[in-house]
Formats: sequence, structure tokens, C-alpha cells
Amino acid sequence: MKIDLNADIGEGFGRWKIADDDALMALISSANIACGFHAGDHLIMDRMVRAAKKHQVSIGAHPGLPDLMGFGRRTMVVSAEEMEAMLAYQIGALRGIAARHGVRVRHVSYHAAFGTMANSDQELADRLAQVIAHIDPELVMLSMPGHPIEKAAQKAGLGVRHLFLADRAYQANGNLVPRGQPGAVIHEPQLIRERIAYFLKHGGVVTQDGTPLKIESRSILLHSDTPGSDVLAQNIFAQITEMGGKITPPE
Amino acid sequence: MKIDLNADIGEGFGRWKIADDDALMALISSANIACGFHAGDHLIMDRMVRAAKKHQVSIGAHPGLPDLMGFGRRTMVVSAEEMEAMLAYQIGALRGIAARHGVRVRHVSYHAAFGTMANSDQELADRLAQVIAHIDPELVMLSMPGHPIEKAAQKAGLGVRHLFLADRAYQANGNLVPRGQPGAVIHEPQLIRERIAYFLKHGGVVTQDGTPLKIESRSILLHSDTPGSDVLAQNIFAQITEMGGKITPPE
Amino acid sequence: MKIDLNADIGEGFGRWKIADDDALMALISSANIACGFHAGDHLIMDRMVRAAKKHQVSIGAHPGLPDLMGFGRRTMVVSAEEMEAMLAYQIGALRGIAARHGVRVRHVSYHAAFGTMANSDQELADRLAQVIAHIDPELVMLSMPGHPIEKAAQKAGLGVRHLFLADRAYQANGNLVPRGQPGAVIHEPQLIRERIAYFLKHGGVVTQDGTPLKIESRSILLHSDTPGSDVLAQNIFAQITEMGGKITPPE
Amino acid sequence: MKIDLNADIGEGFGRWKIADDDALMALISSANIACGFHAGDHLIMDRMVRAAKKHQVSIGAHPGLPDLMGFGRRTMVVSAEEMEAMLAYQIGALRGIAARHGVRVRHVSYHAAFGTMANSDQELADRLAQVIAHIDPELVMLSMPGHPIEKAAQKAGLGVRHLFLADRAYQANGNLVPRGQPGAVIHEPQLIRERIAYFLKHGGVVTQDGTPLKIESRSILLHSDTPGSDVLAQNIFAQITEMGGKITPPE
Repeated sequence: MKIDLNADIGEGFGRWKIADDDALMALISSANIACGFHAGDHLIMDRMVRAAKKHQVSIGAHPGLPDLMGFGRRTMVVSAEEMEAMLAYQIGALRGIAARHGVRVRHVSYHAAFGTMANSDQELADRLAQVIAHIDPELVMLSMPGHPIEKAAQKAGLGVRHLFLADRAYQANGNLVPRGQPGAVIHEPQLIRERIAYFLKHGGVVTQDGTPLKIESRSILLHSDTPGSDVLAQNIFAQITEMGGKITPPE
Repeated sequence: MKIDLNADIGEGFGRWKIADDDALMALISSANIACGFHAGDHLIMDRMVRAAKKHQVSIGAHPGLPDLMGFGRRTMVVSAEEMEAMLAYQIGALRGIAARHGVRVRHVSYHAAFGTMANSDQELADRLAQVIAHIDPELVMLSMPGHPIEKAAQKAGLGVRHLFLADRAYQANGNLVPRGQPGAVIHEPQLIRERIAYFLKHGGVVTQDGTPLKIESRSILLHSDTPGSDVLAQNIFAQITEMGGKITPPE
Repeated sequence: MKIDLNADIGEGFGRWKIADDDALMALISSANIACGFHAGDHLIMDRMVRAAKKHQVSIGAHPGLPDLMGFGRRTMVVSAEEMEAMLAYQIGALRGIAARHGVRVRHVSYHAAFGTMANSDQELADRLAQVIAHIDPELVMLSMPGHPIEKAAQKAGLGVRHLFLADRAYQANGNLVPRGQPGAVIHEPQLIRERIAYFLKHGGVVTQDGTPLKIESRSILLHSDTPGSDVLAQNIFAQITEMGGKITPPE
Repeated sequence: MKIDLNADIGEGFGRWKIADDDALMALISSANIACGFHAGDHLIMDRMVRAAKKHQVSIGAHPGLPDLMGFGRRTMVVSAEEMEAMLAYQIGALRGIAARHGVRVRHVSYHAAFGTMANSDQELADRLAQVIAHIDPELVMLSMPGHPIEKAAQKAGLGVRHLFLADRAYQANGNLVPRGQPGAVIHEPQLIRERIAYFLKHGGVVTQDGTPLKIESRSILLHSDTPGSDVLAQNIFAQITEMGGKITPPE
């Protein structure tokens, strides 16, 4: 049973860090690397690509809004034309760094407000997917099922990968319980391990109202930007391997 | 007689500009596009690539040090590892934007202190040329003849293009008369036209001490970052076409 | 008859410029100096303060949103707490530079989206005015009459200065005709001179629908960020002095 | 026995942190607040000033070079004129934020390369001290004894405060053992406590070659940018109070 363990990575800047990227890189099988706009810089990106190569981790671009101080979480008033340019710039930048190490960028995962903006405007999502398809039609898009980002990727002929979020509660319609609502984020390690066990056995999750939900995915997302993410990662890693899962990149 | 007319372009930021980039783009045949570190931003780069495509101008990357306030002219204390990463990042970023428009990046021309640092350290120049060769071995390096950047490019198997600087005085050894020395920069339009006429007829220049010097080049560099660069460009353009030259990209 | 001629100044960055600041500084009597967030940097600010001192120009802070690429023109999603902090930071920074030259900062004029955000939220405008009053209660606020920024200044006990915009059409209610509407911006030099003559004689303007409007102001704003602003400034300067006006700071 | 416990603080950016600033603020008596160039931003600065006010911590400016990615540790090629402007800008910015909270900035402590550059050029150090004296002649300069920064402060009529570094080995001449040499940094908590006990009893330190050295200081510097700085701070705090010391701002 092959399982992809995915995380955002390289989201520091200069000497600042969010997560213990080196520890995480040894556990995961695919990484979304920040590209210098909301976090990350050329040196961190270079080190992340080296580490990914060493640990045979598949890499993707994690583009965000140009807002270091706001960590790319604040919506900005920018034209679709500018969104296209910032997307192409960031994916290209990571491809440049990857190319010098003989590594290929495999997927794209939008960060925070960049993703929110795309998901609230189908035309924008479509234009962005076209940008990606023109850069490399084999790039795979990470998306929640049924969202505008997924539809745009399909229209543009891009592959799509869904992620299971082990530490987030689900609604019956497949959406996440919004942050801020009670029980939205699951912190209890034992509960997270049980959810992973259920996901591996049944290919889904029990939603907040108690009904089982199928999730077409073999990828588990690990949130790296929370305190204790390295311990959580070890927990998830242990649970998967104990159940006979092999953590390995999706393709 | 095919002549390449080359200029640095897109060296503004946000609403600031150095040159009338649109006017220049209609006159030149190859452009070195700033990549967002010393100047340029994703939106300007996108517009420059569109304009280059429209005018059939060949494009190259013009990477610089990450110093908007100093316009990339100030030497910085950075490791070779970081120089490699910033080079790969910038070339990649431009390639990303070019790719979405179906355009290819053809050459690389270092900006200001980035070039000075490479030219004063052969090992650094070599490492940087290796980065470029790994990204795309068909990229051509712009260099002064005999400089470390040229040697590095040759060792890395990259092509090299020399430029003739129509508005700069030459020494007998082929180097430019350093800025700040009397007569280093030629401002008189008539003189510049005469130098271009001589270059087209004789393939070289008369140096400051009166001796003729061969220059193996069919490329003329137009300085875009001086006041009146658009008028100078029209002058040079007229001189070349009057003499039967056809301004066209190098390959 | 004492007239204050006011302009935004120092709105370049590094080697980029918007206006010929040195030429303008010799003509105006009060300057709103950009503070490094939307434009301006510590070196430009230092030079502007020196030039203002030399020409006996009264200085004010021109704070904006932290968005160099967007020139502070794009609304941002930021908390009131952060707006307060960015205001205090920028006014303080200019006061620091002014203090080293023995000069005092006399007024505050919000830039672009910073002002728009304050004017669309009275509570925010109030909080910002409190910040200014705590830094220096003698600071004067530049505002359009009747706007939330003016009301906030009055509540906080700050003085207010109104500006007459010689190159903008007025509505009968005292507001400007919005940019984009026909006739909103007046470009014709002769018309601008006539409007200044009328303003000096009658203390007001003829609005777009032909009715005369009083403007309680002895300050004329000169837009510096348009091409030809230096020629326009000379025109306005000449018109005022020909009519016997003396261009001098407000207090 | 009054003892000042001093630390650099607010050296994060956006959501990134170096130290647990809130925990430290509750222990120390004076803080050097980063001013947005090498670290810190307007919002962090605002929160640090609030916290300092709450805990009755005396505040100072901690200006650095404009290099977020390099954390202000990389020497830059900048003119003395620009150094003056960046110093005035940063001190002013903090004073602006402090003023809105009714708090006064009491001292200045140069960060990393900014300090190194001043200490390797007496003329530059002098010019910078003049800037500080013009902004507020009551500002106190933090310096190692006998260094150019101290001499400059004395010439400019500024007060000087020396710091004892409890976790750094001293040479017989009063200088620190340079980082990188064996034993330069003391990590062992018990050793640090003994050194503080010695300092409190004898007003000095035993140098690396075993000789006692007087240190004219009642201020102890706590390095905040090392892992475990909060535990170290608690240790030092405990040692001082156990010996009857009262941790309180210098004046």
C-alpha cells in the first residue's frame, strides 16, 4: 500500500524558520516548496531542493502572494494579469533551482490567500491553470475535491491530486469544517492516528456528523506550520508504516 | 549584413521606470530583461516578454544582486552558494514567464555588481557558468572578450556573445576606458554614429590611443539607463539601416 | 497675500524617480515627504529634508501602505492596530531624519489608499488621528473639507489645512469630480492659470456646473507625479507671483 | 543592589520569531528593540513597546543594516551619508511608536554588522554619534569599553553604558574571546550562574588566562537569539534575585 505524505516546506526566510524542515524532509514523500513571495528565499529553496533530492522526495511549487510580513495570508487587490505573472515567476524560479540540481518540479499547490482568491473566482482559477499548463502540462495540481482550482486544472488538461487532512474535521459535503468552529482542528495525537488508520483501511473519514465519507486520495497532508509539527510527523509516519504502508511519492 | 542591437530592459519597479522600454523594444533585436532582484518585477517582466514577442526580439535574463535600493550596483558579502541560488532563481523566474508566452530565453547577461563579482573571481565565475549550463546548455553568455565570465562560459560549454559598446572608449588591450576617466563615455551623437559606421565597415573600433582594434562581434550594446537613451537608440538604429544593416537577433 | 504651494515629494526609490524633486523644492513652500513604505527611502528622505531646509520649505509626513510595487495605491487587508503602527513608524522615521537636521515636521498628509481607507471608516480615521496627537499635538492634518479625516483631526484636537487643487474640477458639494469622469483633470496650462487667478481673487473656484464655491484655504496643491509637473509648477509659481502673491509656508 | 538585565528583543518579522519575546520581557529590565531593517516590523515594534510599558522595561533602539535575509550580519558597501540616514530613520521610527504609547526611548545599541562597521571606522562612529546627539542628547549608547563607538559617544556628549556578557569568555585586555575560538561561548548553566555570582560580588570577571578583570557596569546582557534563551534568562534572573539583586532599569 503506497501512501504519499505531503507537507509545505521551506517557509522560513533568511535565518527565520517555521518548522524543522530538515527533520520533516526525512519523513515525507512530497514537498510543496515556498517560492520567495510569502516565505522562502533563493538560498532556502536551494537547500530544500538538495534535501529533497537526497531523501527522494518529490517536489512541487508552493506559490503565494508577495507579502512576507503577512505570510501570504492577506487578500490583496491585484489584477488577474498580475496573478498570472506572479504564478509564472514563482514556478519558474523553483524550476530554475531544481534544474541546476537535475531535479524536476512535479506539482503546484497554492498557498493561503493565493488559493483562496483562485477558489473564489472560477475565471481567475482558469487563467492560472492555463499558465501552469503552458509552463509544463505534466504538472499536477493539488486541490480539494470539487473546488474551482480542481475544475480549472481539469479544463486545462492538468492532473489533480487530492489530499487527506488528518488533523482537520470534515463536513458531510466533503468540505473542511472552517477554522474557528469548535472541533475544526484535531490536536490529540491518538485521534489523529485513529483517523489515519481509518483512512488507510476504508479510504475515507468519518465526518463531524458521524457519517462515513469516501476520499479519493492516497496522499496525506501534514501541516508543518504548527508547533510540534515534527512530533506529529513522526506519529503519522509511525502509524502508516506500522499498518504496512510505504511512504513514497505519488507517481 | 545582420546586426544585433542589444539593450538592458525592464529595469523599472512598480510604477518607476528607467527608460522608455516600449520605445526601445521597437528598435532593438535582443533584450536583457531584469529579473526582480536589482530591478524589474513579475508584472514588468511579463509585459517585457509580451512586447519582445510582438517585436520578434530575442530575450535573455539580466540577473543582479538582491538590492532594489542600490540598483544592484553595490558589492555584497554573499557566499558562492548563495550567488548560485540567486542566479538559478532569476533565470528560472524569467523562463517561467517566457514559457507561458511560448517564448524561449536565449542568453544571460550579468548586471552590474553581480558581473563585477564574477569577473573578479574565476572560481565563482566557473560555478555560475555551471549553474547556467545545468539549467539550459544552449543559453549564450554575454561577456567582454577575455574576461573570467567568458572563460567560465567556455569551460562550461556555453556559447559566448561579445558586444560592441558604441558609446564607450576602448583601450588598446580591448578593455573599456574605466568610467570616471576623461573621454570614457561618448555623448556626442555624431561621434557615436561615426563609431558605428566604422564598426560596421571594419569590424572594430579606433582605441583611445589611435590604434585600430578588431572586435569579433555583430552585436551592439545600447545603454538604456541614461537620459535620452530613446533618442540615442533611434540614432543608432538609423545609422545601421542607412548603411544597409538589418537589425535582427543573433541566431 | 501669502500663499502656500504644497506638493508630494521624494516619491522615488533608490535610483528611481517620479518627479524632478530638486526643481520642485525650489518653487514650493510646503512638502509632503514619502516615508519609505509606498515610496521614498532613508537616503531620499534625508536629501529631501536637507533641500527643504535650504529652501525654507515646511515639511510634513506623507505616510502610505507598505507596498512599493503598488505605490501604495492598492487597498490592503490590515487591522486598525497595524494601520496605527505603520502611521507612528513612518511619522517617527521622518521626525528622526528631520531632527538630525534641526528641522521640525509640521504636518501629515495620507497617501493614496492609506487615505482612502481612513476616509471610508470614521473609527479608523479617529484612531489614526489619536496616534498623531500622541506623537505631537501641534501636527496639522491635510484634508479635503468635511471628510472623515478632517473630523477625526478635529476630535483629536489637531489643526487642519485644506488644499485647493488647481488641476481638478470641483462638484457643487465641494468634492472633486472623480478621476475617470470627463473633465475631472485639467491639463490646459492657461485654464489652470485662470483658476489660480480666480482662487486668489475670490477665495474659491467655479464648479463644474458653473456655480461659484468658496474654499477656505490659502494652500494650493501641486500634483508632482504627473509628467511635466515641473513645468506646471513653474506656471503656477509665475501666476501667483505675478498677482502679487508671496509663496510661503502656512504658519 | 540594582542590576540591569538587558536583551535584544522583537527580532522576528511578520509571523517569524527568534525568541520568546513575551517571556523575556517579563524577566528583563531594559530592551533593545529591532527597528525594521535587519528584523522587526512596525507591528512587532508596537507590541514590544506595549509589553515593555506593561513590565516597566526601559527601551532602546537596536538599528541594523537593511538586510532582512542576512539578518543585518553582512557588511554592506554604503556611504557614511547613508549610514547616518538609516540610523536616524530607525531611531525615529521607534520613537514614533514609543511616543504614541507615552513611552520614551532611552538608549541605542547597534546591531551586528552595523556595529562592526562603526567600530572599524572612528570617523563613521563619530558621525553616527552626532546623529544620535542631534535627535536626543539624553540617549545613552551601549558599547564595549574602549571601542570607537564609546569614544564617539563621549565626544558627542552622550552617556555610555557597558554591558557584562555572562555567556562569553573575556581576554585580559577586556575584549571578548572571538567567536569560533575554543571556549568563546559558555553554554553550561552552572558556569554562567557562577560568573554572575562573581560579577555581582567582585564587579568583574575572571578572564580566560585566569586573571581577574574589573568591569565598570551594572548591566548584564542576555543573548536572546540562541535556542533556550528563555531558560537561560530564568536562570540568570534566579541567580541575581537569590543574591539579593533587584533587576531594574539603569536610571
